[in-house]
Amino acid sequence: MNIIKIIPIMNLPIIKENDDLAALICEAAEKQGTPLQDGDILIVTHVIVSRAEGNVVNLDEIVPSEFAKKLAMQYGRDPALIEVVLRESRSIIRMGGGHIISETKHGFICANAGVDRSNVPGERNVALLPKDPDESARRIRRKIKDLTGRDVAVIISDTHGRALRRGQINVAIGVAGIKAIRDRRNERDLFGYTLRIKQTAIADELCSAAELVMGQADEGIPAAIIRGYQYERSEDSTAKDLIWPREKALFL
Amino acid sequence: MNIIKIIPIMNLPIIKENDDLAALICEAAEKQGTPLQDGDILIVTHVIVSRAEGNVVNLDEIVPSEFAKKLAMQYGRDPALIEVVLRESRSIIRMGGGHIISETKHGFICANAGVDRSNVPGERNVALLPKDPDESARRIRRKIKDLTGRDVAVIISDTHGRALRRGQINVAIGVAGIKAIRDRRNERDLFGYTLRIKQTAIADELCSAAELVMGQADEGIPAAIIRGYQYERSEDSTAKDLIWPREKALFL
Repeated sequence: MNIIKIIPIMNLPIIKENDDLAALICEAAEKQGTPLQDGDILIVTHVIVSRAEGNVVNLDEIVPSEFAKKLAMQYGRDPALIEVVLRESRSIIRMGGGHIISETKHGFICANAGVDRSNVPGERNVALLPKDPDESARRIRRKIKDLTGRDVAVIISDTHGRALRRGQINVAIGVAGIKAIRDRRNERDLFGYTLRIKQTAIADELCSAAELVMGQADEGIPAAIIRGYQYERSEDSTAKDLIWPREKALFL
Repeated sequence: MNIIKIIPIMNLPIIKENDDLAALICEAAEKQGTPLQDGDILIVTHVIVSRAEGNVVNLDEIVPSEFAKKLAMQYGRDPALIEVVLRESRSIIRMGGGHIISETKHGFICANAGVDRSNVPGERNVALLPKDPDESARRIRRKIKDLTGRDVAVIISDTHGRALRRGQINVAIGVAGIKAIRDRRNERDLFGYTLRIKQTAIADELCSAAELVMGQADEGIPAAIIRGYQYERSEDSTAKDLIWPREKALFL
């Protein structure tokens, strides 16, 4: 019987620009008695990645466009924040009920183009999504390998709302060392029936599992280890595998 | 440090109509050395619940309507299966690319109204969703309490595609003893910023976490225990909390 463990990484310092995230995570994991092991999956929330990468914007330095001002007025929101959301968007998918659902530069569809006000120090600072979250994940993965010799998959997570269900869950926006989707088409079930449609969004499920420990402390825990899950290794998988090609998307 | 464990329940027998699912699960959990404990969350896939409840239909006994025949022809699918999907649907949300996305009687939006061909014995048999999955969960929860004295939350899971992301994940369609959504609005973050929108779909995240062990064996594992997760107890929560009210749904 294979039990999977979700291990929170406690006592990370407040992450600042140019911090060596991989080193800080390895140290914290070591200190709490759960050093990273071969085959572990490390889940890291995008906000600390963005903070370490300096991908933070001060709203006081943003000059909002007329369109941003109009939307802000209509929604009762901060015009500078709306301006940043527009700048981070490749296209707007839906607007309504005070929400802007947009397609990010990377192709993810989420509220506010992933611009995040929470867990960012500085009252007027917001975190953008990492510029290339797959590359951020690969960098952390390589660094961990260098520091500890361990082969660890890394996933960068974000919190997304859903079109068809209420409530938010954590999903993957960057992956390294693991296949984001497990393709089970053509496998047979218990009774020999061939599975027709079954592509499991493993990377998203891992992020949702990690959220269970990340959300548990009041102050939030920005990283977690998933141990004991047998995954398909991949050096070229990308979180973009989790994006619908437009022609197949029934809801866009 | 609070580590969460995801424990597969191995060696359950093939579930048949009128089987006592709760008793079989308690027995299997006991036998493998992980008896259910107070505070555990038991995740059960809907297919074995439907099979135990006799909610299985033989396609040979279904007379397809003209509409079902037309769709089946168009999509290259079985007319009797399409007929069952239509009967299980309250409304059709999208049709395209060979898929029928419909709203089930309960209000869930998913492919084929949740009608499931896999893991159902009998070549022409399909499993419908349980008639009242919350009630199914409550029944299993009560029975476990009766049998073992343990206070266990129960969630019935299903595998759903997503509108905005590729790949399927497991989500909750019935809950008992646990709040489906954790409402974190008005909580403060690490730096004192008040969270504006944050309602975590805990029950869905728990199902996705459980899928990590459920999907691991080739033959599939229909139940899992999540241990060590601190959740909000509730006797009247329902998986319907995870359904968008129509007026707030931006994508319907």
